[in-house]
Parts: sequence; structure tokens; C-alpha cells
Amino acid sequence: MAQALRVALAGLGTVGGGVIRVLDENRELITRRAGRPIEVVAVSARDRAKNRGVDLSRFAWVDDTASLAEAEADVVVELIGGSDGPALALARRTLAAGKGFVTANKAMLAHHGLELARAAEAAGQPLKFEAAVAGGIPVIKGLREGAAANAIARVYGILNGTCNFIVSKMEAEGRDFAEVLAEAQALGFAEADPSFDIDGVDAAHKLSILASLAFGTAPAFGDVAISGIRHLLAADIAEAAALGYRVRLVGVAEADAHGLFQRVHAHLVPNDHPLAHVTGATNAVVAEGNFVGRLLFQGAGAGEGPTASAVVADLIDIARGEFGPPYAMPADALATSGAADSGERRGRAYLRFAVADRVGVLAEIAAAMRDAGVSIESLIQRGANGDGSVLVAIVTHEGPERCVAAALERLRGSQSLMGEPMWMHILG
Amino acid sequence: MAQALRVALAGLGTVGGGVIRVLDENRELITRRAGRPIEVVAVSARDRAKNRGVDLSRFAWVDDTASLAEAEADVVVELIGGSDGPALALARRTLAAGKGFVTANKAMLAHHGLELARAAEAAGQPLKFEAAVAGGIPVIKGLREGAAANAIARVYGILNGTCNFIVSKMEAEGRDFAEVLAEAQALGFAEADPSFDIDGVDAAHKLSILASLAFGTAPAFGDVAISGIRHLLAADIAEAAALGYRVRLVGVAEADAHGLFQRVHAHLVPNDHPLAHVTGATNAVVAEGNFVGRLLFQGAGAGEGPTASAVVADLIDIARGEFGPPYAMPADALATSGAADSGERRGRAYLRFAVADRVGVLAEIAAAMRDAGVSIESLIQRGANGDGSVLVAIVTHEGPERCVAAALERLRGSQSLMGEPMWMHILG
Repeated sequence: MAQALRVALAGLGTVGGGVIRVLDENRELITRRAGRPIEVVAVSARDRAKNRGVDLSRFAWVDDTASLAEAEADVVVELIGGSDGPALALARRTLAAGKGFVTANKAMLAHHGLELARAAEAAGQPLKFEAAVAGGIPVIKGLREGAAANAIARVYGILNGTCNFIVSKMEAEGRDFAEVLAEAQALGFAEADPSFDIDGVDAAHKLSILASLAFGTAPAFGDVAISGIRHLLAADIAEAAALGYRVRLVGVAEADAHGLFQRVHAHLVPNDHPLAHVTGATNAVVAEGNFVGRLLFQGAGAGEGPTASAVVADLIDIARGEFGPPYAMPADALATSGAADSGERRGRAYLRFAVADRVGVLAEIAAAMRDAGVSIESLIQRGANGDGSVLVAIVTHEGPERCVAAALERLRGSQSLMGEPMWMHILG
Repeated sequence: MAQALRVALAGLGTVGGGVIRVLDENRELITRRAGRPIEVVAVSARDRAKNRGVDLSRFAWVDDTASLAEAEADVVVELIGGSDGPALALARRTLAAGKGFVTANKAMLAHHGLELARAAEAAGQPLKFEAAVAGGIPVIKGLREGAAANAIARVYGILNGTCNFIVSKMEAEGRDFAEVLAEAQALGFAEADPSFDIDGVDAAHKLSILASLAFGTAPAFGDVAISGIRHLLAADIAEAAALGYRVRLVGVAEADAHGLFQRVHAHLVPNDHPLAHVTGATNAVVAEGNFVGRLLFQGAGAGEGPTASAVVADLIDIARGEFGPPYAMPADALATSGAADSGERRGRAYLRFAVADRVGVLAEIAAAMRDAGVSIESLIQRGANGDGSVLVAIVTHEGPERCVAAALERLRGSQSLMGEPMWMHILG
């Protein structure tokens, strides 16, 4: 039997414990598949005394996480999280020490992925991050390798399980956002501070990683246009349903002559699209290649088992020696693409206004649309809400997004509007 | 720039031409991703004169396909097809010559995969076959690598695009099998001799490959229980719909204490299952892992572009040096599992009988079920068909399959039955 791959593990939260459990429970199978054993040899976490349900006494304990880089190991697995701080320090020090690095840390990759890829390439060591996007779904591998023969025109998907759990529960039960969020928090599907999830930041981190792999461009998290689901009403979901759509928070990245376009936004997804059937905390990613057509990858986007499964898959690749440049090509070969102007994009939009129930409001909205050059496909006005407002929902014909933006600008500050309008894109 | 990976290509049909087009159109991108150019240097096909829409003059032409193994190439790509004959001869000779081998030939792998894997391992060369299963979908990679950390309990999916095209068209248009098959043939979605597809053999070839990767067992095509969709009626699809199901031809492989179970059979798929939404020639594969949960891979299962995309993905892996044992572990480490007895399986079944419209028939069927220990969940009898028969559709409670088989055995030869009963399994 070949020599074991020795692993040092930083972070013993849910996923860290999961990695130990996967390696324990599937030991024989993993050894056969990897061609050699994969052994955790050292661990580091904040609290040594905490009961994690796994026996840690067989591992060397390292108090100072960053010094795991010097443990007697071949690979360091980082499951601490956070874009900077200890995680980044450990990544830099590990790669500088000429060891492999595996991480589930999307925030760190979104901000520092290119630097770390360069360091890994310089060291001739692996930097792998399957668990950073879409949990257990092998979509990093799917893009880096499975779809590698294709020019990818677009990659998009449901990248945040918390949001999808909330939206699909709102949909199934006809309930409003705040109420369902509270329930998701009670069930452990949403954090106490949920803003990274519900405001789209987490999905944007993941999208920037997918975009880089799909298009061969340097990661550009700063160019992602981000919004979330905080202002979504049960009524929006009901209107969408009446029109043949479901609402999903979708991250979309597209590369064309205008540059690289990246956006996380609530979308109306046609009922016959596979993403419309993705419910609960499930994630799904679609890649559109110029030869392969539409590929869909779907599965559990988070959680102990799925995320640990992805981390260990990376370790198996490393044990097999089957790895190469982290972003599929050398970091210096990645193109730098300017951010595309969303105004130039064409599409159909859903707009919803909460308006005062009085004469002339509809005319005001219709005039703003007309004056901005937005062509209306359908308009529904529903009776008064509890707060005296009336909902007006519009679906536009296909047109440039700048016209929609201009129409909303015209309506800004209008006395007729109660609260911010809701603008969703229709997935085409 | 590193040295090019030199490719010899056997077979210039749809997929062979597609491979050349992918390498031409995406040349720059593929070179960046592979780290070096991938160059076709020699080709062989039956008819040199045939116009294939690609310029062949830049490649060496080899008349005797088997001697491509001695061309000045690093890898031979085989797109001839057929389980034995020239394809197998070429595979053996190529690997014996110490060169890599890439194939889309599911029949050859189903019958000779283990021998070829041994030869590849002995030569230290790649044997890759992403295109052999589910066209452009990277499901071989998904199982071999993406889900490698998991014990897989079950792998199943829609593996034949022709059947799914026919079944979903029958469903959408309420038409019968023969009529839709004729139309599929006219459209090029079904072969002139469609039996390999519609009788389930093609799906069974693919299933045996998936099972081997999923369970770490030697390929056992001979143990696949195979049936197709020839006897499916529009009425079956309508009854299934009324009960909340869609009909799909599904290949299922499962490993448990009873051994390895492999079956291609028409199934009732619950409406809320992702496979229920797979229509047309699309393929989809689900793998259930003990940590990752349910993974779904979906995309185009056949056709020039998707299949060529998978072939070139294999070439890119080879160019990168990212390959290992074909079946994820050395061929000699694959377990040999006995075939599980389907009678021991538990599940729910759909049974449909065409019966004579006369007194006592229902009692006869009900008695056969009772005497065999089959518990009936629902029974629907619909009025007479054109031929004077009446359809009786039964859904059973969960129970052992041997009881259902016994009930059908009791009814065999009954004067009341007109034609063979239809037995479908309900996907659980």
C-alpha cells in the first residue's frame, strides 16, 4: 500500500466534524478509491474541550491554527471561514510551506482566489475548493473538467440554500418573508444574522468562483451586482405563479462582447425550467456550453455530510495525484474582462409597486413606463392590502434594462408609491 | 508551450466529425485549459470520399483502422461502435502499444470493460469513456471523482434519449407507442432498427458502467434485468398521471446485503421527483451517497455536440495528466458481487391488464392478488377499448416483488386476459 496522504484539519465545526466522520465511516472504500489511505494527523480549533462527537485524541492538537502549516502533513484543510484573518493567514503559510490546501471558504476565494492560485502554482501544490460552491455538488469539477471542451456562454443557478428554503416555503405556504425567515432561523436553516445569505452576498461569492472557471477569467467578486430576497412578498410569488413562473434567487454570470456580467437577483423562472422545481435547501447550477448545450448539476448545497463529501473528494483527487491549476488554467492565463453594463442587457422584467388606492396612480405608472420606452406585456392590479395599499404587478416585453431603470427613476419619490418597487428579472 | 497531445481518430460519423469541430472551434480555449494543444494527426473511417463537412486533408488517412494503434499519436479515440469487431481489436492493440484510449462505446465497455481496464493499467495509460454514458453529462467523472468520498447506495436514471423522447411525447400528446416511434424515426431520434434503444439494451450497457463506478464492483452487464417500452400504452401514461406519476424508462442499480441489483424497466416516477420533469431526449442520472445525499446530473444524452464535448473533456484530462485507473480503483480491486434476487426487493407496483369485458374478470384478478399476498392500494377499471377489451390498472402497497410475480404467474394463460399484463415499478 502506498504511503498515506496526511491531512491537517483547521476548524472543527459542523463540516470539520463531518470530514472526520466521512474518513472514518468510508475508510475502506476511500482507501481503495484513492489508492492509499487518507489520514487526519493534526487538528486545530478554537475550543479543545468542546464535545464534537468524534474522538480527537488520536490527532495531534495544534493551538495556533496558522502553525498547522508546519504540521507533519501533506495537505491542510481549512474550514474556519472568513475572507481574511486566520483562514487567509493559514492558506498563505501552507502554500508557502509547499503543501496542498483544500478549503470550503468561498469568501476567501472570492477575495483572494487569484493570489492563492498563484501561490499554489508556484509551489506545484494543489489548491482545491469543491466544497466552496454548492456544497456536495461537484460543480467546480463539472466546469473545470467535465465541460472543459466548451466555450461557456452562461452559468447560473440557485446557490444559496437558505434563500431557496425561504422562497420555496413562502411559495408552498403563501406566507410572507419575515415570518418564514424566523422559522428558518428556529430550524437552523438560517443564521441568527442572516444578511450574508438573504442579501445575496454568499451567492455572489460562489458566483464569482463559478464565473472564473466557466469563462477563464480572473475572479471578479467586486463586479457582481447583488441583491437579495428581503423585499419579496407572498403576493409577488402568487402573481408569478399566476403568470406561469416561480420566484428563485438566481446567480447569473454571462460573458459576451460587452464583457463579463455577474448578478445575484430574484428571478422569475418559467415553470418548465429545471430550476423551478428546485425546492428547499437544494442547490442547482446550469452551465450552457457551445457544444454540450445545457448541463444541470443539482444536490444538497450545504450541511455537514454534503460539504464534507466535497472536501474529501478533493482529498481523493490529491491522493491520486489528479490535480492541476486551481482555475483550470494557470492563473496568469486567466483573462481580465471588464464588467458588462447591465443597462445594455435585454430581457423581460417583473415590476411590482405598492401604491396608494386613489385615482390616477395607474396612469402615473403607465406614463413612466411609456416615457422610458418600456413596453408592457401584462399588468395586474389587485385589491387593497391590509395597509391600504394596492399592488400593481407588471410584466414587460423584452427590452433593454436601462429603460426599466429609467422608468423606476421617473417614479422615484412619487407620492403614489408606498415603499420600494420590486424588480425581478425573468430567466430567459 | 508544451508539446501537443497527438490524437488518432477512428470513426468519422456524427460524433467523430463533432470531435474535429470542437477541437477546431474551441482551439484557443482548449489549449489554455489543457495546458497544451490537442491535435488530431490521423483519422480512419470506412469511406474516405464521403463529405463530412470538415477538411480531412490535414490529417494522415489510415485505411486499416486497427493500424491506427501504430500511428504517431499519444491517444486513440474510438468512435466506431459495436461491442466486438474492429472497435475491440483497436482498443486491445492501442493499449498493447502503450497508448491512451478514449471511447464512446458503451457496448464494448459493458462486455469487455474489465479486460480493457487491466490492459490500460498494465500500460500505465488512460482508458477514458465519459461519452459512453449520458452523452455530454460528466457523470462518469461525477461518480469516479465527484462522489468518490461516498458509499453509493443507489444510482439510477434516464439513460436512453430515444425512449425518453418517445415516452414524453406519448405523454404530451396522448398518443400510442407505435405512432410516436414512427415519428421519432422520421425525425432521426430513433434508429431504423430501434430495438437496442426501445428494448432497454442501450440503457443497460450504460447502467452496468455506472454501477461499476458507483459500487466499486466489476462490470456485470449479464446481470442486468432488461425490458423496454414496447408494450406501453397511452392509457398507462394517463392512469399514471391520474395517480400523480409520470412514466419513464429508468435504469436502477443498487448494492446491498443481497448483492448487486441492476434493472432497466419502465417506472412510475412521482411528479415531485426531478426525473419526472426530464422530457425529450434529455438524460439524467441520480446518485445517492451516504454523505452527499442525492446528486442529480442532467443534460443532453446524445447528439454530435454533447457527445463530442465529453470525448474532448477526456482528452483534456489526458493532456493535463489528470487520469488514473479507469474504474476509479485498480481493476483487480473491484469487488465481484453476486446478482441480487429481484424477488427479495420490496416496492410498490403498477399492474395493468387488458381484459375481456365480462362478469367475473375483476374477481379473478383480485383473487390472484390475494392468493399471492399482494395488497392492493388502488384499482381503476376503465370502459371498453376499441378492441372490446377493458383496462384494469392496479397500484399495490409496498411488498416483495416475488408476490407480484406469483400473482402474474397465477393469471398466466387466463382466458380473461387479452395480451400480456404491463408491470411497472414505482420509483421510491
